[in-house]
Amino acid sequence: MTTTTVPTPTRPELLAQLAAARHERRLTLAELAAQTGTDRVWLAAALDGQHPMPLALAQTLLRTLGLDPAHAPALTGVPMRGAFQTLPPTDPTLYRLYEVLQVYGPALKTLIHEEFGDGIMSAINFRLELHREPHPDGDRVVITMAGKYLPYHWASPEP
Amino acid sequence: MTTTTVPTPTRPELLAQLAAARHERRLTLAELAAQTGTDRVWLAAALDGQHPMPLALAQTLLRTLGLDPAHAPALTGVPMRGAFQTLPPTDPTLYRLYEVLQVYGPALKTLIHEEFGDGIMSAINFRLELHREPHPDGDRVVITMAGKYLPYHWASPEP
Amino acid sequence: MTTTTVPTPTRPELLAQLAAARHERRLTLAELAAQTGTDRVWLAAALDGQHPMPLALAQTLLRTLGLDPAHAPALTGVPMRGAFQTLPPTDPTLYRLYEVLQVYGPALKTLIHEEFGDGIMSAINFRLELHREPHPDGDRVVITMAGKYLPYHWASPEP
Amino acid sequence: MTTTTVPTPTRPELLAQLAAARHERRLTLAELAAQTGTDRVWLAAALDGQHPMPLALAQTLLRTLGLDPAHAPALTGVPMRGAFQTLPPTDPTLYRLYEVLQVYGPALKTLIHEEFGDGIMSAINFRLELHREPHPDGDRVVITMAGKYLPYHWASPEP
Amino acid sequence: MTTTTVPTPTRPELLAQLAAARHERRLTLAELAAQTGTDRVWLAAALDGQHPMPLALAQTLLRTLGLDPAHAPALTGVPMRGAFQTLPPTDPTLYRLYEVLQVYGPALKTLIHEEFGDGIMSAINFRLELHREPHPDGDRVVITMAGKYLPYHWASPEP
Amino acid sequence: MTTTTVPTPTRPELLAQLAAARHERRLTLAELAAQTGTDRVWLAAALDGQHPMPLALAQTLLRTLGLDPAHAPALTGVPMRGAFQTLPPTDPTLYRLYEVLQVYGPALKTLIHEEFGDGIMSAINFRLELHREPHPDGDRVVITMAGKYLPYHWASPEP
Amino acid sequence: MTTTTVPTPTRPELLAQLAAARHERRLTLAELAAQTGTDRVWLAAALDGQHPMPLALAQTLLRTLGLDPAHAPALTGVPMRGAFQTLPPTDPTLYRLYEVLQVYGPALKTLIHEEFGDGIMSAINFRLELHREPHPDGDRVVITMAGKYLPYHWASPEP
Amino acid sequence: MTTTTVPTPTRPELLAQLAAARHERRLTLAELAAQTGTDRVWLAAALDGQHPMPLALAQTLLRTLGLDPAHAPALTGVPMRGAFQTLPPTDPTLYRLYEVLQVYGPALKTLIHEEFGDGIMSAINFRLELHREPHPDGDRVVITMAGKYLPYHWASPEP
Amino acid sequence: MTTTTVPTPTRPELLAQLAAARHERRLTLAELAAQTGTDRVWLAAALDGQHPMPLALAQTLLRTLGLDPAHAPALTGVPMRGAFQTLPPTDPTLYRLYEVLQVYGPALKTLIHEEFGDGIMSAINFRLELHREPHPDGDRVVITMAGKYLPYHWASPEP
Amino acid sequence: MTTTTVPTPTRPELLAQLAAARHERRLTLAELAAQTGTDRVWLAAALDGQHPMPLALAQTLLRTLGLDPAHAPALTGVPMRGAFQTLPPTDPTLYRLYEVLQVYGPALKTLIHEEFGDGIMSAINFRLELHREPHPDGDRVVITMAGKYLPYHWASPEP
Repeated sequence: MTTTTVPTPTRPELLAQLAAARHERRLTLAELAAQTGTDRVWLAAALDGQHPMPLALAQTLLRTLGLDPAHAPALTGVPMRGAFQTLPPTDPTLYRLYEVLQVYGPALKTLIHEEFGDGIMSAINFRLELHREPHPDGDRVVITMAGKYLPYHWASPEP
Repeated sequence: MTTTTVPTPTRPELLAQLAAARHERRLTLAELAAQTGTDRVWLAAALDGQHPMPLALAQTLLRTLGLDPAHAPALTGVPMRGAFQTLPPTDPTLYRLYEVLQVYGPALKTLIHEEFGDGIMSAINFRLELHREPHPDGDRVVITMAGKYLPYHWASPEP
Repeated sequence: MTTTTVPTPTRPELLAQLAAARHERRLTLAELAAQTGTDRVWLAAALDGQHPMPLALAQTLLRTLGLDPAHAPALTGVPMRGAFQTLPPTDPTLYRLYEVLQVYGPALKTLIHEEFGDGIMSAINFRLELHREPHPDGDRVVITMAGKYLPYHWASPEP
Repeated sequence: MTTTTVPTPTRPELLAQLAAARHERRLTLAELAAQTGTDRVWLAAALDGQHPMPLALAQTLLRTLGLDPAHAPALTGVPMRGAFQTLPPTDPTLYRLYEVLQVYGPALKTLIHEEFGDGIMSAINFRLELHREPHPDGDRVVITMAGKYLPYHWASPEP
Repeated sequence: MTTTTVPTPTRPELLAQLAAARHERRLTLAELAAQTGTDRVWLAAALDGQHPMPLALAQTLLRTLGLDPAHAPALTGVPMRGAFQTLPPTDPTLYRLYEVLQVYGPALKTLIHEEFGDGIMSAINFRLELHREPHPDGDRVVITMAGKYLPYHWASPEP
Repeated sequence: MTTTTVPTPTRPELLAQLAAARHERRLTLAELAAQTGTDRVWLAAALDGQHPMPLALAQTLLRTLGLDPAHAPALTGVPMRGAFQTLPPTDPTLYRLYEVLQVYGPALKTLIHEEFGDGIMSAINFRLELHREPHPDGDRVVITMAGKYLPYHWASPEP
Repeated sequence: MTTTTVPTPTRPELLAQLAAARHERRLTLAELAAQTGTDRVWLAAALDGQHPMPLALAQTLLRTLGLDPAHAPALTGVPMRGAFQTLPPTDPTLYRLYEVLQVYGPALKTLIHEEFGDGIMSAINFRLELHREPHPDGDRVVITMAGKYLPYHWASPEP
Repeated sequence: MTTTTVPTPTRPELLAQLAAARHERRLTLAELAAQTGTDRVWLAAALDGQHPMPLALAQTLLRTLGLDPAHAPALTGVPMRGAFQTLPPTDPTLYRLYEVLQVYGPALKTLIHEEFGDGIMSAINFRLELHREPHPDGDRVVITMAGKYLPYHWASPEP
Repeated sequence: MTTTTVPTPTRPELLAQLAAARHERRLTLAELAAQTGTDRVWLAAALDGQHPMPLALAQTLLRTLGLDPAHAPALTGVPMRGAFQTLPPTDPTLYRLYEVLQVYGPALKTLIHEEFGDGIMSAINFRLELHREPHPDGDRVVITMAGKYLPYHWASPEP
Repeated sequence: MTTTTVPTPTRPELLAQLAAARHERRLTLAELAAQTGTDRVWLAAALDGQHPMPLALAQTLLRTLGLDPAHAPALTGVPMRGAFQTLPPTDPTLYRLYEVLQVYGPALKTLIHEEFGDGIMSAINFRLELHREPHPDGDRVVITMAGKYLPYHWASPEP
């Protein structure tokens, strides 16, 4: 307590500092992704605390946003993932994504099985994209989920 | 009971009969959509009871699947939408869609606001696609959501 | 820590300070809305943290209520909306609004579909009003919701 | 089973028969309200089982829709009100009404207290209206709630 | 931080200080109600944060209990009412009140409708009493709820 | 199936038949209580299935309402009590009783302890009354709960 | 802030200090109960915050455990009882008690009614014991609940 | 449908028939346990569907209560145990057992660990007793749980 | 109704018939798995409705258990998986599996990441085994889960 | 307060310090288990706060990780076990374990009863292992649960 060492901030504290610094410098996620050679959606999730960051990336991000790169290790552990404690989300922008699942979920399940067989779309071996689609009646938000198809497989041990 | 009138089946009963008949005739949703000039995903949702059907389409579907087209009006009312009473869904194929929302939901919200401003992706003026993307490491399930961007707007009454 | 800079208050802290200052100065929302040229209901929601504020408005509000206008940027981001974690609300004034939905919700759905077709009343392109209606048996609280009708539309991509 | 007495249908059964008959005869709620001199919104709620019907009205409705008016008494008891067991509602048309409460509920509470004092808007001495407001950018669904203001009052017994 | 102004305590802080001071001075709610000319039950609820207090009463209470009457305004706003987040309450004294509702709720509803018609007992225009009823087998806790009967009324706007 | 014995109706079936017969004969609970020498509130709860009935009373009720008194034993067992599976109740008449608990519950607990000490109001050794209190501003629904005070007592075994 | 008075610790703080001091001094609840002439189970519950303590006992406990007996009054108020917010408990030792209720609850209800009639085992006029029963296959944990039988009684007011 | 074979009743149907027959013959569980040489509490749970019955016992019970002993095998499978879907139970007799856990659960955990060490009271190797304890102030319901103490043990595989 | 066609039983009905027939013939899952060349655990899950069956296997199972092999197609569709609507399970045998997750879940997560990196154990490319491990202190139930390790991978589209 | 003694950290604080120190020194659980002669899975759970630690082990761990061994007693009490307040877990690595229970739980129950009889796999007399199984299609995560089989036994008291 008498030493001058500053305690390492926790991961949530660091993420809050990164968000505040990004907001202050008016740096978009697109710009930050371009500067760091990462994917914009992946980076948004990582800055939301949903992915561990490689050490070098964490250092770059901290430096770019004027924070101490020595704190980078706190961003490299595998986090406890999951954004919501209670569901459905109350925020309207988030709720519409949830509503798509409520209205179209079983239809997607039926079509995955018709197109691929008994299995799932992986959310682990996965990418997610978002872009703007111009449209005369008003531009579209287009979200693309792409996950490896994993067939149900009862795997015998190797002999 | 002595008259010969058969009670009109309810919408859920009709949808179950349509599903059974489609299964029996081994007709895929893709084939049925092609035969009726509808979108495969929309049709899957409509056959799940999430959309009203135009009368002519309902008649065609009933006829194609060997059922009485006179029951078509029961499929034309606006349904009470929503597939799940309790969430998250227990089925693994459905759960992965939900997990995407848990892990990437706030990232998508941030990017929608960065790209478009304060608003939402409509789930009403909307389309949804699913296709197979070949990949050397295993094919991908690709799901595309496209909804009109709706900016938050405090709308004054017209004078 | 040795510098004299005061940390920027967070959005919730600023909103609490604004509420306390407004209470202390006995400024009504109606007066504040008139002074800032905003709608009284919209402003009430914005001061509850449900809407981002334009920068100039945030500066004016802070200045009017004796706070530092330099904090205005903290009020301009798009918030995570939604007032209640658990529902129904326990407060009687709020509960009656919820009870209206419990008793009349399906009736409103039926009438929206009868009057407009298959679609929704937008809560995004929307306005909300509250006024006092004099009545010999006791004045009425009148709440008017007006949202753009959005028909369900399966939107093809533009070619 | 050999006697000819038909058991009186229960209230839910009668309401379902009335809904089916109305659908079959393509009678709108507006037309039915005009024919019976009732309010369209009140009637929609009553046919949803949320209000008791006066005996004469119940008889008229049954007769108009080709059902046996002798069943009218089953529609006259005070019902157990409340449309939803679990909330929020999954149907998008209903959900938007709920979202209005999530986003604007506390703002309405603040304004009711500012305009009227410590009290509530009654949902018992109440009326609800719905109409179409033409608008160049797309017509509006306008919903008006009007409830008697009830001030909190600690009522002493009369001497 | 260098000035000597003490921050105004929040309402919850003030209520906790009032409770502690009352406990320390061994002042019962009955005595405090007698001294301030208020109803004992109403006062208990107000000191639990469920009612706004008139300014003069708040000043008197603070002064009587040795606290600074300058804090009185913090007790005068309309609170967000409702004591429990989760239900049923776990405390046995509270649970028995809840059990009465579980066992006798529908009976009370039936009798209110039989005695008064279709309506409710107001919990807004309302009083609540508690007294001790001597009884040879053990004294009774007697709780009396008295609320204005409010008939369901579909209120037309005044012309 | 070829014999003519009719299966004894279950308790819920009998209670439904009693309710329908009472409704048909327009017998109020007050009248039925007077005819059978029982308390009106107790009888309402018993007919709601919350209390076992003495055999003679069950026979009288069945006979009075035109049903077979041989079914009386089915009404004499101790029931699984409790009216609601989910809470709070959605019905407005019931909800107001629940709201009283939300707003005044802790006040009642405090006053029970102040008046009696550490204990509860029994809901087992208990009576409940409902009556109409005339009032110039509108009659009151008055509900009186009276339960034996039970002090917390750590009871040693008798030697 | 410039005076040297130390704020009285709250009840939860005092209970935590008592627990820590007991742990540090390696005093068992059995020893503490013997020293204070109280029942071991009752004392365990009181130290868990579930019972008010007589003033003299609170003073003795504080003194015995090296704490300031002047804080004793904070332990004498009637607490808000109830150990769990969410149920079932996740701790395995606690869960087994809950599992007994899941598997044997209705059996106990049936036997209470068979043995005693329509009523309950009081949890207020009650004692609870725990002891070790030696057994060749492994000693038993024996828990004994003993509560006064309270018959359902509709108690008329005394004339 | 033309053959005369009667379908074997399901376990729930058989248990309901056994309960009805026992009620009709006014046979207590104590008598039935004495006649079949079983424990009264165990038998009550088995007749509630919480335990499999040995074949001979099932046959004896069916014969004693006038039912077809050929149905005995349906009572011998291991059931899905657990009486309540939602908790706490609403029935007051059951609720008091649950309240004991709410008020005294952590005290019991502390005492089990003090008396035995880190482990649990088994609810599998277990017995439960209920008896009446005469007492001048009113007889006691005494419930005794006795379960084998199981210490936490990290069990290495046998070499 | 005059034709002699018997309606195809639904999947749940067929599964119930298979379970009853297996129980009647006293065929263990181990025997049935051996006869059909399937894995015992996989077969148990398939007969619980959690997996689609290959047509030939469904026919063999139906034939082996004396049912009509023509119903086999009803067992071949991909089911909506998930055994429990509410959790945790009340059955003690199932609950212990859940308790393992409560006590050891985060430990397993930490060790998976330590041993493999950021990823999951697949429950799709997966096998599950159960066997008896003899042990002098009492035999062990040994359950082995083996799932393919899937590393988190942000998968770029193939060029 | 005037002495310089540092307050003993609480168990959660100590566990957080141990985790941070282990992370900083890049010590794996496997290494720490090897150094302390403990099982890797047991140690992971103990460091997650799910098990009490023997005093000597706690001292060793604190010393090894550069913390003060005097704090060891805080790690030796029996904890309140259970990692999750709400379920299912949102983290994908944890969720897959939960999904195994959703899909295979009843199958495991059936097989435990078939293999062992009516009873459970103990989660108290238990061990858990995790290892990597090499496999040409991708290595497997193998998790082995081994718990003593406990037969349901209605245990008479010893005479």
